[in-house]
Amino acid sequence: MDALGYYNGTWGSLDDMTVPMNDRACFFGDGVYDAAICYRKTIYLLDRHVDRFFNSAGLLEINLGFSKEHLKAILNEMTAKVDHDEVLVYWQVSRGTARRNHAFPDGPSNLWIMIKAAVVADLSKKIKLITMEDTRFLHCNIKTINLIPGVIASQRAKEAEAHEAVFHRGNIVTECAHSNVHILKNGTFITHPADRYILKGIARGHLVQVCGDIGVPVEEREFTLDELFDADEALVSSTSTFGLGVDCIDDRPVGGRAPELLKKIQDALMADFSRATGYAKQP
Amino acid sequence: MDALGYYNGTWGSLDDMTVPMNDRACFFGDGVYDAAICYRKTIYLLDRHVDRFFNSAGLLEINLGFSKEHLKAILNEMTAKVDHDEVLVYWQVSRGTARRNHAFPDGPSNLWIMIKAAVVADLSKKIKLITMEDTRFLHCNIKTINLIPGVIASQRAKEAEAHEAVFHRGNIVTECAHSNVHILKNGTFITHPADRYILKGIARGHLVQVCGDIGVPVEEREFTLDELFDADEALVSSTSTFGLGVDCIDDRPVGGRAPELLKKIQDALMADFSRATGYAKQP
Repeated sequence: MDALGYYNGTWGSLDDMTVPMNDRACFFGDGVYDAAICYRKTIYLLDRHVDRFFNSAGLLEINLGFSKEHLKAILNEMTAKVDHDEVLVYWQVSRGTARRNHAFPDGPSNLWIMIKAAVVADLSKKIKLITMEDTRFLHCNIKTINLIPGVIASQRAKEAEAHEAVFHRGNIVTECAHSNVHILKNGTFITHPADRYILKGIARGHLVQVCGDIGVPVEEREFTLDELFDADEALVSSTSTFGLGVDCIDDRPVGGRAPELLKKIQDALMADFSRATGYAKQP
Repeated sequence: MDALGYYNGTWGSLDDMTVPMNDRACFFGDGVYDAAICYRKTIYLLDRHVDRFFNSAGLLEINLGFSKEHLKAILNEMTAKVDHDEVLVYWQVSRGTARRNHAFPDGPSNLWIMIKAAVVADLSKKIKLITMEDTRFLHCNIKTINLIPGVIASQRAKEAEAHEAVFHRGNIVTECAHSNVHILKNGTFITHPADRYILKGIARGHLVQVCGDIGVPVEEREFTLDELFDADEALVSSTSTFGLGVDCIDDRPVGGRAPELLKKIQDALMADFSRATGYAKQP
């Protein structure tokens, strides 16, 4: 199958799948999600993604009604049906099905899965960013499907032929529309603290871990737009991009002053992915 | 029919309706909505609701692809199929159907309609409120389906056996989870300005208009929690509640010091509704 959709035990070709109009996702965006990259049926860092998903659901008080082991088994079963080496495995839960009424309904939540082809990023390429004021709500630590600000920012980035949009609250950089952003300065890896202003990215956590493994000091602290523009290197991380270097923000050149350190970090990221999944970069 | 669902020209019993999993409402909450109260097939203040809906869609850059007249004709046609005197007519548009990708897809938007029984509020009853810090995004002027903060606040209100939750940013009162909130003080009607912190309620605008008609001065300005608790009367307005008086907030008694003025305003609201729809309150 090229792409798969799953809803509460029913599955089929993604583009043919339907869901009830009264699902709480439809009228309220009342749900949380997570997603992982998968190479040849091995879903990378699945335990961490499932842990975060359960945490997001708990923060929104959505009663999942199934165990982590049950979810992982379904995700693996569905992933096996899709005919691509590299896929994105996405799942979400919504707060049940009921006629529209803001307060929580009775009844079980709904499990959605969506699996489609993806491409593991080529870390030898550098990317371009734009910046935008961060006007999002103060619950960015929860991976919800209330994603309009991210949609608008991503569209602005696309129009600028950029890879991502960097959000900032005043002069403080928070994160990107669907990635985290970090800087290297004087040999130190600097990233926004995991508070309510950013999503605690799995790839972000993996970057912090890899930096520790190879002896790069890590500071989890706020940094400014000025520090971003003046970074030795800037990096963007997400489930499918791991840690991409940045060479341009708002049409100004950025980074390029610590290429060996950047490559050392990226090589460590890719080595871990290869060890876990058997992935080998195409020559 | 008891309740109706409509999706891009297909309609049926609400609880049986389905939509494509790839509709942008499902993964991003990427849509806007509006809703009006209807009595015996007359949709009250429909032009104003349709104007606001087109404005919301424009602010999110959703290309509707149909005219206001076309939308109103469909809403009236669908409303005629539902067998209740008092119904809520709800409609939304989502930014098309496509495999999940943040930036805007090509292709047309999707029109959803949902019509179900509703009850016009009894304005002789007073209601109870709770207060909550307003942590929502800074686009509250757009009537989007990114409604998680409103869902959580409504649930907190329900648990407290209250009618609504009042949001405040610090000491400034903004609005409720799905209503606007106003105060009467020394004979003046005071309501938050229609900026990005509140939805510009149709019922709010109607209240302002009615106050003008009956000679009540109106101030559109920020007011504080202290002013709310110390108001002569507090009112909550929405499509189905028009202007309900408040007698309790966070378990503290509120208002009750200008009952005649409150009733004069409420009588003017109900008189307009009756003129427009033929509604007569049950004895």
